[in-house]
Parts: sequence; C-alpha cells; structure tokens
Amino acid sequence: MDDFSQLPEPEESARWKGLVCPNPVRDMETILMAHGGGGRLMTTLIKKLFLPCFHNPYLESLHDGAVFEMNRVRYAFTTDSYVVSPVFFPGGNIGSLSIHGTVNDLAMCGAKPLFISAALILEEGFPMESLYQVALSMRQACQQANVLLVTGDTKVVNKGKGDGIFITTSGVGVVEKPVHVGPERAKVGDKIILSGSIGDHGVAILSLREGLEFETRIQSDTAPLYPLVERILETCPEVRCLRDPTRGGLASVLNEIAEKSQVGIKITEASIPVKEEVKGACEILGLDPLYVANEGKLVAIVPSEKVELVLETMKKHPYGKDSAVIGEVIADPAGRVILETRVGGHRVVDMLSGEPLPRIC
Amino acid sequence: MDDFSQLPEPEESARWKGLVCPNPVRDMETILMAHGGGGRLMTTLIKKLFLPCFHNPYLESLHDGAVFEMNRVRYAFTTDSYVVSPVFFPGGNIGSLSIHGTVNDLAMCGAKPLFISAALILEEGFPMESLYQVALSMRQACQQANVLLVTGDTKVVNKGKGDGIFITTSGVGVVEKPVHVGPERAKVGDKIILSGSIGDHGVAILSLREGLEFETRIQSDTAPLYPLVERILETCPEVRCLRDPTRGGLASVLNEIAEKSQVGIKITEASIPVKEEVKGACEILGLDPLYVANEGKLVAIVPSEKVELVLETMKKHPYGKDSAVIGEVIADPAGRVILETRVGGHRVVDMLSGEPLPRIC
Repeated sequence: MDDFSQLPEPEESARWKGLVCPNPVRDMETILMAHGGGGRLMTTLIKKLFLPCFHNPYLESLHDGAVFEMNRVRYAFTTDSYVVSPVFFPGGNIGSLSIHGTVNDLAMCGAKPLFISAALILEEGFPMESLYQVALSMRQACQQANVLLVTGDTKVVNKGKGDGIFITTSGVGVVEKPVHVGPERAKVGDKIILSGSIGDHGVAILSLREGLEFETRIQSDTAPLYPLVERILETCPEVRCLRDPTRGGLASVLNEIAEKSQVGIKITEASIPVKEEVKGACEILGLDPLYVANEGKLVAIVPSEKVELVLETMKKHPYGKDSAVIGEVIADPAGRVILETRVGGHRVVDMLSGEPLPRIC
Repeated sequence: MDDFSQLPEPEESARWKGLVCPNPVRDMETILMAHGGGGRLMTTLIKKLFLPCFHNPYLESLHDGAVFEMNRVRYAFTTDSYVVSPVFFPGGNIGSLSIHGTVNDLAMCGAKPLFISAALILEEGFPMESLYQVALSMRQACQQANVLLVTGDTKVVNKGKGDGIFITTSGVGVVEKPVHVGPERAKVGDKIILSGSIGDHGVAILSLREGLEFETRIQSDTAPLYPLVERILETCPEVRCLRDPTRGGLASVLNEIAEKSQVGIKITEASIPVKEEVKGACEILGLDPLYVANEGKLVAIVPSEKVELVLETMKKHPYGKDSAVIGEVIADPAGRVILETRVGGHRVVDMLSGEPLPRIC
C-alpha cells in the first residue's frame, strides 16, 4: 500500500503551530445566517478559519468534493448537510434533495456516484409518518441515481433544539474517465453552457414559505445529474469545469470559477433561461434569479471548438433539454463576472453578500 | 472497471415495490429521544424502517461502517452525527469527539482511517470563538489520528432551530490487513477483551450537565483507537470482532454481537474495570456503568488460544493499558448476555429500553 504513505502529511503552518494564534475571524463575533448562505461571508469563514486550520491540497481545491488517487484509481468524496425548510416542497423533500445534492457533487468532480451515507438529526416529536415519507424519497432517489446507501446514523435532539429533520449525506464515487475538471481550469476563449432554466428550486421553496400562489405551481428542479455528466465527459473529455449552481446560484458559481481560474467571465442575460413564472415570483420576492439556488442544473465550461457538440449532446438528455450557451471566458477583468444586459449594458455580477435565501437546501 | 458492474443493484423487495406499503413503524407516532439512544427503540427504527427501505448487504451487516471491495482493495466508509450537549466537556469537545468517533468506527471495521469529511450545522448566534476552538480540536484530533480532513460543508439555521453546533463526520479507510471482523463472527469459546475502564465519557458529560462536582474531575476518554487496533490485528489477524462501546455502552455492544452471532455472552462483573469516581457518580445518577457511553474504549473478541498474546499487546499501548479479559462466548442462551455478579449470582444484561442518557455523543 505504498500509495498511502505518499499522502501528504497534515502540514504544520507556522501560523498555526502550537495552536496559540488568535482567532482569525475574531472581527466577527457570532455566526450569522449569511455564514451559511453560499456568499461572501461563507467564503470568508472557509478561507480564513477552516482552510488554514485543515490546510491540505484536497481541501484547498475548494471543489464540490475531494478527489484522491489510491492504487491508481481516482475516487471522489463529498459531504453536505441539508437543513431545508419546509421539509416537503413541490417537486421533492429533504430526502430526495439530500441524495441528489450529494450525487451531484460527486458528478461535478467527474465521478460516478457509487456509495452514499446518511446521518439523520431528528427533533423529538417529528412525525414518524414524515420520516417514512422522507426515507421513501431517499430510497427512490438512490435507485434513480443508481447508488447504494450503505451506512447511516440516527441522532435525536430535544424538542426545540432542532427543526424536524436535518440530513447529512456523504458520497464516494469513482472517476472512470480520463478527465480533470476543476474550478481553476477555465481558459480564455472557453464557452459556458448552462443545462436549463435557473431559479426553480429556490423559488419553489420561497413561494411555499411566503405563502405565494401562482397559476402554475413552481416545482423544484431537484434531480441526479450524473447521467448527463457522463454524456458530457464522453463527448468532451477536455471539459474544464463542471459545477452545479446550488446555494448562491449561478452568480456565485461563476464568481468562484473566475476567481480560481483568474479569468473573466462574460454572460449575456438574454441567453440565460428563466421560466416566466420564476421571473414573476422573483419580481414579487425582490430576488435576482442569478442568485437563486438550483438543484438539478449544471454549468459546463468547455473549449470553444467543442461547444456545439456538447450542447447537442446535452439537449438530447431530459435533464439538459433546455441547455444554452450563456457566455464565454475572457481575459479581463480577471476574477470578475460581467453580465451583458438585455438592453446592451454591462454590469458586474458580484458574490452574494447578505443572505436573502436562508435554508434553501 | 468491471468491479462496479458487479455491485448488487438496489433490490426491489415485493413489500416495497411501488412505495405504497404502509409505514412499518406506524404504531409509533412520533420520534422520541430514545430513538437516538442506542437501545431497543433505535434498533426497532433501523430494522423496521431503514433496513427494508434501503435493503442492501452493506447496510444489513449493521457494522460500524460499510466495507466494500473495489479493484481488489477493501475500503471502509462510515458516518456519524454528533449532537453532544454541552459542546465543551472535560477531556474534549464536540470537535475532537467528531473526529475520534469516526476514525474509531473505521478502526472497528479493521480499516486504517485515511480521509474525513465534516459537515457543520451551526445555529445563528453561535460564538465565533467557540467555533474556532472546535475547529482547533478537530485539527489536533486529525493530526493525532493521522487522517486528512479533505472536504466539508457549513449550514446555518435560525436561532432556536438548532443547538449551537452539530457536526457530521464521515470517513474513508482502507482494510490493509487480511482480516474479517464483524459482529456476526463470534464463536463459542472465544474470549472477550475490554481495553480499559467503562463509563468515563458518559459520566463526564452527565456530571457537567447535572452540575455534579467530585473530588477528582472525571474526564471523557475520547481518543483515536486505530493504533491500538493495528497492533491487535498484527498480533491476531483471526480477531473475530471489534466494537467501540459508545451510545448504549458495553451492554448494547455485547447484545448486538450475541444477537448477530447467535451465541451467548457471559461476562463477570468483577473483571470489568470501572473507575471509583465513575462508580460513585453512577450511583448518584442512578446509572449502570454497563450502559454508559465510552469514546476511547474497544471490545475485542478473540479466539481463546490467542487471548493472552492479544491482552499483552493491548496492555503495552497507552489506550489499552488497563485492558482486561471480561468474559467469554458461550453456546447458551443464544442471543443473550449474562452477567456473573460480584456475589456469584447471574443476571441477564438486556438492551437499553428507555433513554436515560440523551445527547451523549
């Protein structure tokens, strides 16, 4: 097992040695909702507190999961907690979401999802029938994604110390194709493909929470994306980057890529699919669809010479039928996302700084 | 990658087909604290609801983790949520506990822990300084256990919808030695070794919670056990079974082994190490140390001809210095644990049925 001895040792950075350095985020006294929102505050917490603390190349890739090689096979490993409120929503519930989310994070590493773990934190008094419905949804989602739920845990907290049910899923997958995807791999000239309309998941949850009723009920887009990813990888093994725009929406994912790759990203508003009812709901709720969470969409950054081929492949798949080229990677301004508006103007699309959408996933 | 195509497909059991069967636990209306207590109610929930739902041989082994083979290498995969209250306690905090617990679950599968994921559910208002202290403890625990924390997630829930911090860790390890350990492998004649005194962790938490003060402050025994396991496996690759008696304590672990192996287990009270101060606290709190959680102890079931050798090896390790042979595997009564008391009587040691020790881990 020579491979394992070659793993990097947990490094001792001088700053952290002896564990006596002051809290690097001591300017922030307590945790705010926005620390979990996928935007600027969360990024600060991760970069200033967690990354220096756990300091290793896997974590520092800041990908949707860690990819490591063992015995000449590459595996991906990922985890996510789900705290969505309400637990049941149009198009799914916390159970299906917790499976789809984790298989999608593996897929975004280019990995075929194989095994899933699930750890439940239940609040005393949570209805058994609801737990059963959640478990059935998890089961169905596992079957659909062709993964096995192989290990789990159940904890119960006192009434008033939780919120019904929280689920943490982790996943292990295998990178079967000779691909290397990552947020740091975008290159000037690459094209950006989005697999369908944005904002459906976030708006479905928020409409329910706010008691909004629309003529057409907006459904969450929660879905397992590996089959779509597999076709993209077959068509274009050179794909640079795959991301699912969940918390923080399309804007946050593109900002992460722009920053990690040190490139500019230019997108055109007119090319980004947004359903009419989602647009309407966003207007009422005062939201920009670019920042609203999705749970069944992906962004693929591909070399320009392959863009037509990839687009065609994606459109043939049910989860990619509304795919569109929404922009391209440019040199300047590096680290920034620029939106060309419908009227031809340009504006910077920044990271989210507040938290308008708590507990969306 | 032929290995993966040979993985069992999620099976369709007739009962669950179409997802229309009634809730198998409909006699229990809501979740109770005891559903998370490691005792009888939790076992019922797992066996009646989760196992039939997710139905696969990995999950059904009911081990501390799932062991699967890929490319002729065996890996272990495990997950646990930590909801301990209070978050900081003598001997550790939720951070060190969440790392030790998961590396220990891997170790109990005979696996060397390699990679850890951590998913945090924070309550709005949780002090940043506390988060920092927890992160430092996790870091230190990872270094001590020689594992890398490679991926993570942070969610925040509104004030009053959580309890400060919950951590879910998952782990991936590799089974390097040609061993096969499992709760179903105990054989009549085998000896049972316990690696040290029981009850320390649970009593440390409860004393703090109840405001009890003792002359000697009782410390949690939270510790990473793989180095001890590695020596056991080297000395005795035929070891039948390894378990860490966490929630539900020694009594629950022995009951699980007795049931899964369909053997009887006889232990002698006089041989089970319990510290004087733990004994005293248990008397005040009305607890039986046999049911109190440990976080740095293990039970090894070994063939009788190897027991002296294994005991000697364990005693040489700091985490096993108080190891003792506490009993043996017998034929009758199958599925039962019998305690020979100090006065020479015998009583059945059953599974826990209530929940005297909520949120101990």
